[in-house]
Amino acid sequence: MNSSVGIVSAQRAIFNAPFTCKSGAVLAGFELVYETYGSLNAAKSNAILICHALSGHHHVAGYYADEPKNIGWWDNMIGPGKPIDTNHFFVIGLNNLGGCHGSTGPSSINAATGKPYGAGFPVVTVEDWVATQAMLADYLGVQQFAAIIGGSLGGMQAMHWALAQPQRVRHVLAIASAPHLSAQNIAFNDVARNAILTDPDFHGGDYYQHQVVPTRGLRLARMLGHITYLSDDAMADKFGRELRHGKLNYSYDIEFQIESYLRYQGDKFAAYFDANTYLLMTKALDYFDPARDYAGDLNRAFAQAEAKFLVVSFTTDWRFAPERSRELVRALLHNKRDVSYAEIASQHGHDAFLMEDAQYLAVMRNYLDNIAQECAA
Amino acid sequence: MNSSVGIVSAQRAIFNAPFTCKSGAVLAGFELVYETYGSLNAAKSNAILICHALSGHHHVAGYYADEPKNIGWWDNMIGPGKPIDTNHFFVIGLNNLGGCHGSTGPSSINAATGKPYGAGFPVVTVEDWVATQAMLADYLGVQQFAAIIGGSLGGMQAMHWALAQPQRVRHVLAIASAPHLSAQNIAFNDVARNAILTDPDFHGGDYYQHQVVPTRGLRLARMLGHITYLSDDAMADKFGRELRHGKLNYSYDIEFQIESYLRYQGDKFAAYFDANTYLLMTKALDYFDPARDYAGDLNRAFAQAEAKFLVVSFTTDWRFAPERSRELVRALLHNKRDVSYAEIASQHGHDAFLMEDAQYLAVMRNYLDNIAQECAA
Repeated sequence: MNSSVGIVSAQRAIFNAPFTCKSGAVLAGFELVYETYGSLNAAKSNAILICHALSGHHHVAGYYADEPKNIGWWDNMIGPGKPIDTNHFFVIGLNNLGGCHGSTGPSSINAATGKPYGAGFPVVTVEDWVATQAMLADYLGVQQFAAIIGGSLGGMQAMHWALAQPQRVRHVLAIASAPHLSAQNIAFNDVARNAILTDPDFHGGDYYQHQVVPTRGLRLARMLGHITYLSDDAMADKFGRELRHGKLNYSYDIEFQIESYLRYQGDKFAAYFDANTYLLMTKALDYFDPARDYAGDLNRAFAQAEAKFLVVSFTTDWRFAPERSRELVRALLHNKRDVSYAEIASQHGHDAFLMEDAQYLAVMRNYLDNIAQECAA
Repeated sequence: MNSSVGIVSAQRAIFNAPFTCKSGAVLAGFELVYETYGSLNAAKSNAILICHALSGHHHVAGYYADEPKNIGWWDNMIGPGKPIDTNHFFVIGLNNLGGCHGSTGPSSINAATGKPYGAGFPVVTVEDWVATQAMLADYLGVQQFAAIIGGSLGGMQAMHWALAQPQRVRHVLAIASAPHLSAQNIAFNDVARNAILTDPDFHGGDYYQHQVVPTRGLRLARMLGHITYLSDDAMADKFGRELRHGKLNYSYDIEFQIESYLRYQGDKFAAYFDANTYLLMTKALDYFDPARDYAGDLNRAFAQAEAKFLVVSFTTDWRFAPERSRELVRALLHNKRDVSYAEIASQHGHDAFLMEDAQYLAVMRNYLDNIAQECAA
C-alpha cells in the first residue's frame, strides 16, 4: 500500500513573456522544470504544489527510469497510500526560478549574450517564486490548489501564496518554517555567503567563464548550514567525541568523526550545487518578511489570508524553532483563521521535516485525508 | 575605590630548556610574555593566575603608558576595589605558548631556521599550557596559587590545574566553561579551521614567507565564532531585521545591520590575529577532555582534584551552556569536593563572562573576598 509513484520524468514549461522581478530586474523569459504525480481530477480541485527549500528541486517523489537510485527528496511523504496520497492528489514539484536543477538560473545560458547569466541573474525572492509558480499553475490548468506544502524556505512560499493569491489556495501546510528569519539566521547565511563571495574562484559570480567553481566557499557554506540543520543532541548522539583514527594525532587533519562527516557533506554538495544559486536562495530566505509592509505587524500581514493552515514544528529545531511557528499561528488566530498546529517531539533538529517520524507522518496524513475528502465531495 | 591598576607593562620570561609537548613534539625553548598587578605577599600565598580564552592574552588589566586606550581585556574584573582586588592579590596574566601577542608561537622566529615556525609549530594543548604556566609560576616564585581563574578555554586551563597540579592551586574559578566540547562545538571549530586551511593564502601554514596572510579564512572564522558568542535573543534585540540602508537593494552587498556588524568584527580581527594561532587555539579546545583517560568517566577524572571550585555559567550561553557547567559540578560533588555554582541570568550569551553584570560581579567579589581573608589569615 505504501508504495512509490514509480518511474517519473521531468517536464519543462517555457515562458516567453518578460518577467519583472520584485527587485525591478527583468528576465526576457524563463523555463521551469517540474514533475507531476497522480492525476488532476475532472473538477481540477485536487492539485497540490510542493515548494522546495534551499537545496531542493522538482524531483520530489519516485525515481528515473535510467537512474533507479535517484529517489525524490520527499518520497517518504508522497505516493500511493502515503500521507500526500497520489491516489487522491495531483502533486506538482518544480525547481524554482534561479535554481540549478534545470529551471532558468544563474548557470543557464542567457540568450541575449550566449553566456551563462552569472552575476547578471537577478536576486529573486519568495514573491517572485510564488508569481512564477502561479504561471506554472496556469500552464497546467490549475486555477486553485487544494494545498500548497513546503518545509523551511518552502514553507515561506506556501505562506506567501495565502497572502498573494488568497483565492488560489485552500490549504497551506507550513512545516519547520518561520514568518521571517531572525538576526542569528541572517548572520549564519551571511557567513555562508561571504565564504562564497570571497573565494578567489568566485570571480564576482562569473566563474563559469573562467572554467572554475568556487568549491572552497560552497563547501564551507554547506558545512556551516549542515550544523544548523542538526540538533546539538542529535550530533552528540550520532558522533559525540568519537575519534576518526582511534587516537589523537595532534594535527589539523581530521581527528573527530563529526569533522569527517561535515567535510564529506561539504565536498559532496560542492561537487554538484551551483554557488550563485546558493547565494540567491539564502537571500530569498533573508528577505522574506510579510510583516515588513505593515510596520512589522504580522497580524495585519495575515489579515488577507483566506486559506486554512496546518503549521508543524519540531522541538529540537533551533534554526526554525517552534516559537517561530507559534508566531505564525498567533497571527492566524488573531485573524480568526482556521489553523491547526502540531509541535512534534523529535531529536533531529531542522532536518526532521524530511525524515520519517510516526507522529509527524500521522499528523500530515490525517490533515491531508480531510483535504482529500473535500476534493471528493 | 573601583579604579584601574593604572599603567602596566609587559614582561618576558625566557625558558631555554627543551620542552616536550603532549603531542611529543619538542620546542628547543620558549618565551612567555606576562603582566602582573598588585604585590606578592611575604607568605607568597596571594597569587592569582588569569588564563585566557581563544583570542585573549597577557594584557588583562590596566593600560600602557604609550597607549592609554589599550585597556586590559578583563579590566572590569581586576583592580583595586574590584572583584579580583589588587589591594589583596598578586595577579598574573600571560599570553599562552602558541599565542600571537608576544609569547613564542607560530609567527615567532625559530632560532634553528631563522624563519617563522609556521606549520612547524606544534599543536599545543591545555595540558601544555598548564605545564608552561607552572614553569612561569616557578620563575615568579609562586609555589601555590590562591586561585586560578579563567573563562571559556581559560576555564579549561583552570580545571586542568586542579587535576595536573593539585597541590599548587587552592581555588579554581571556571567560568562559562565545559569539561569538554560537544560534537556541535567541534563542528563549528572545524568549519572555522577549514575556512583558514583552504584559503589559498594559507600556504600550508607557511604564509609568512609568502608575504601574505589568509585574511579571508580568518575573517570567516571570526564571523562564525562571533555568532556563537552571542545569544539569539541578544542578536534579535541589538540588530533584529534592521536594514543598513533603510531599504532593500536586492544585491549581495550588506542589507541588514547584523551583516555589517559581523563583517566589521571579522575584518577587525583578521587585521591583527595570527591564523596559525587561531587554528591552534581551536584544536586545544577540541582536545580538552579530562575524562578521556578514564573511559569517559568525569567523576573518576576529578577524583584527583583537591582545590575548591567556583563554577559560573550564563543562562543564554549556548556555546558553553549551563548544563555543561553542571556536568563539572556533579563530578566535583560526586568526589565530595567543595564547589559553589552560580547560574547567572544574562541575555549576553557566551560573551557574558566578559561583561559587567551586577549579579555576576557580586558572586565573583564575594567568593574572592573569602579567598582574600584566607590569604590574610
